[in-house]
Amino acid sequence: MGRLEYFSIIAPDMGRIFRFMGFVTLLPLGVAAYFEEWDMLVPMGLVPLIFVLLGSALLTIPRPPREARLSVAFTAVALIWFTAAVIGSVPFIVGLHMPVTDSIFEAMSGWTDTGLTLLPDVDATPKTLLFWRSFMQWLGGLGIVAFTVALVSRSGLTQRGLYRSEGRSEAFMPSVVGTGIAMWRIYGIITLLSIGLILLSGVPVWDAVNLALTAIATGGFTVHSEGIPYYDSALLEFLLVPVMLAGAMPFKLYYLMYYKRKASFFGDRQAVALLSLALIGIFVLFGDLIFLSGIDAFSAFRQSVFMATAAITSTGFQNTSPFTWPTVTTLYLIMFMLIGGSSGSTAGGMKISRVLLGLEGLVWWFKRIFVSGKAIVPFRHEGRTVQRNIAEVEVSKNMLIIILYFLTVFVGTIAVLHFETPTMFESSNVIFEVVSAFCNNGISTGFVNPEMSIGAKWVFIFVMWFGRLEIMPVLVLFVGLIKGFD
Amino acid sequence: MGRLEYFSIIAPDMGRIFRFMGFVTLLPLGVAAYFEEWDMLVPMGLVPLIFVLLGSALLTIPRPPREARLSVAFTAVALIWFTAAVIGSVPFIVGLHMPVTDSIFEAMSGWTDTGLTLLPDVDATPKTLLFWRSFMQWLGGLGIVAFTVALVSRSGLTQRGLYRSEGRSEAFMPSVVGTGIAMWRIYGIITLLSIGLILLSGVPVWDAVNLALTAIATGGFTVHSEGIPYYDSALLEFLLVPVMLAGAMPFKLYYLMYYKRKASFFGDRQAVALLSLALIGIFVLFGDLIFLSGIDAFSAFRQSVFMATAAITSTGFQNTSPFTWPTVTTLYLIMFMLIGGSSGSTAGGMKISRVLLGLEGLVWWFKRIFVSGKAIVPFRHEGRTVQRNIAEVEVSKNMLIIILYFLTVFVGTIAVLHFETPTMFESSNVIFEVVSAFCNNGISTGFVNPEMSIGAKWVFIFVMWFGRLEIMPVLVLFVGLIKGFD
Ligand SMILES: [K+]
Ligand SMILES: [K+]
Repeated sequence: MGRLEYFSIIAPDMGRIFRFMGFVTLLPLGVAAYFEEWDMLVPMGLVPLIFVLLGSALLTIPRPPREARLSVAFTAVALIWFTAAVIGSVPFIVGLHMPVTDSIFEAMSGWTDTGLTLLPDVDATPKTLLFWRSFMQWLGGLGIVAFTVALVSRSGLTQRGLYRSEGRSEAFMPSVVGTGIAMWRIYGIITLLSIGLILLSGVPVWDAVNLALTAIATGGFTVHSEGIPYYDSALLEFLLVPVMLAGAMPFKLYYLMYYKRKASFFGDRQAVALLSLALIGIFVLFGDLIFLSGIDAFSAFRQSVFMATAAITSTGFQNTSPFTWPTVTTLYLIMFMLIGGSSGSTAGGMKISRVLLGLEGLVWWFKRIFVSGKAIVPFRHEGRTVQRNIAEVEVSKNMLIIILYFLTVFVGTIAVLHFETPTMFESSNVIFEVVSAFCNNGISTGFVNPEMSIGAKWVFIFVMWFGRLEIMPVLVLFVGLIKGFD
Repeated sequence: MGRLEYFSIIAPDMGRIFRFMGFVTLLPLGVAAYFEEWDMLVPMGLVPLIFVLLGSALLTIPRPPREARLSVAFTAVALIWFTAAVIGSVPFIVGLHMPVTDSIFEAMSGWTDTGLTLLPDVDATPKTLLFWRSFMQWLGGLGIVAFTVALVSRSGLTQRGLYRSEGRSEAFMPSVVGTGIAMWRIYGIITLLSIGLILLSGVPVWDAVNLALTAIATGGFTVHSEGIPYYDSALLEFLLVPVMLAGAMPFKLYYLMYYKRKASFFGDRQAVALLSLALIGIFVLFGDLIFLSGIDAFSAFRQSVFMATAAITSTGFQNTSPFTWPTVTTLYLIMFMLIGGSSGSTAGGMKISRVLLGLEGLVWWFKRIFVSGKAIVPFRHEGRTVQRNIAEVEVSKNMLIIILYFLTVFVGTIAVLHFETPTMFESSNVIFEVVSAFCNNGISTGFVNPEMSIGAKWVFIFVMWFGRLEIMPVLVLFVGLIKGFD
């Protein structure tokens, strides 16, 4: 099949989504009007305009009748995220006269919920554009949940086999449209609750709204150059902890809670693992800070609770610079960034489910080594026995993805170093920054800054995109572009 | 089965091997006599004595009749290597009054062909002990080849399934005894040829013998504190290149060449990949050195040819310190160290076969994503189609091992950093050194030195042991010790 014919399969789906985005992205215009930033109306208004025009154009393309393939969904989602970043960059280019690369970086960091920024001065940026950053993160967060859920319930990459083998229907929502509406409602409710919670700390409404949007999306943009330390409020930091955790929980739980009225947080292994990891992270960071840094106990507690949660949920808020920390503590931070939150949440990283499945595969293999001869060792997943051949496929796919994560960090770091010669920043800072971008985390050493070379900026843009979609969609797009889609 | 009963299965096999080692390790006594280092006779004589006594003691243990299991072979080989390191440390403790930890480190670095050293002054060390270091590397090199071959042809972990599925018998040698004799003969011939080759450079016979022993074993010990730069001979460096490559080739090829009179280097994919990787490495390092370091073309050529070969073959000789190099070049070096040489050779690292199988798995999965519905995509390995369920198992095991490699580097680095607070050495140097020890490579930043804390030294001892046996044997030993062998 030719590349053009292939894209014509995707076009109508993309068109519908873009036209929908055209309507949703009208909201920042309200912010411009409220704050009377009239000069922002045109830059901001271009976004819905382009989305609607592009969407309508794509909808005119006739869709050839062909069966759906996994590669089609992958290619479509990869293209949607990239196009959204390009369109999302327009307000920064037109309204702030930022360079094109920096603007695309900013929008990609927004849609992918990464939170790294190239804004020259956050405090001096018009409120409309600050809201646009927060809003992109909020939309991107729900977008990735919807994509993951659709993938699990429809085309079935991630671990579908594990469920199907038990004859259990994983379709926790009847259709994508139904999913969409239920999702929006739940997401909206959680966001409103978060705004209320954050207001308890006494920050202004404007700050509370933006912080809630970016915390629940585990995005991490703030509306001040200083970030979270601007508020200098331990209360705010502790109030943000549950919001970040809520963003990194599997959203399926909220659905079950809201529609089926059953709360089963402790029955979900990802939720349990997330909370355990956060506790372990707090414990380790606290110990390291007390024994290795020698700061006072309350500061150590405040830093460890906030930073461990921000790292493991991939939100990337910071109430301190981890580069005043001992090296070994920073390495723990990297590990938490790599693991990331739950799959089916707004969080980034490899995902807890993937790490758990990897561990199960390891245990399984160990048992098989110890057992003599041809005795059969069953594979157990979530308390059930899985058919052997299905287990092999799922374990193996999972391992591949994990290896691709490590490889990407490696290749990304080498690529950045080919563009930048680190004099001030040692190489381990570059690795840290690549992991942070790739896992859509956003904790930064300061290496990512507007002075960086254009090449390095594009590596980071690519790495954020690659990581948000968990590698395969972008890889499939590139392989398809190069080798054709057959 | 109880732990003691379990060890009684292994004891006779270990006893035979230790008694054999007792006879072989008489050779360094000849060196002591030749150089009239009479005070070294006792320290060196303790090694064969202990080996023979321990071996005989183990042989008296009655072996319970039980079927052989993979875990038995794994546990035995892990214990053999560790015991050999403890016994091998005696001459350094008794003859040189080195601390026990440093001596075990030195012997482990010898038997595992790593080449990192804690000797306080190589030039001032008695020749008997220098020969003992080289000889441990030489024996350890053949030992690991024999272990890998035995594993493939008997119990069959590594990729046996891939061969068996084609009904092809992989037993390239009829029995372990036969293997042993054929191996010793071939290894001896190659070593003699290497000595002759190295003598062409004009170095003394003493140096040529030691360099040949450690080069063919891809071990990397030298007899001068300065290492290879001591000789300041470009000719020697170029002559060592083919010897190192010979050590990292699959030894199966030599067997086929010697006994079947057919040379099939270019028919073996590991051999082809090894040479290609060396060429790529030379090319990349040369380019980086010319464009980023700005040294003259001949020096760049000399450094890139020697360092790339030393890195990819895991020999670890150095004709320059890579820490005068740009960071990005060092990262390439880490990548080459991680890949390592061929499996079934004396080289360390993940092994080329494992990397190739990983890539095949990736390609296979890609094809399956692009193909619609239930169409079957065959798995191709070495030009043949492999049964699907076998392919799944092998691909999945392979991925697990690769992930364990990355994990070990991570955990090892964190462990070292808990014992050492790097002030002079930045954290990326620690990662480099852990990779170098783990992949039995031995290229060093200078971080490993006698001043290091005892804890860090033990982490390195463990990591060398873990890496040489390719993870599983040591892991099985520990899991068995903790959870029992059932
Ligand atoms: K983030
Ligand atoms: K070595």
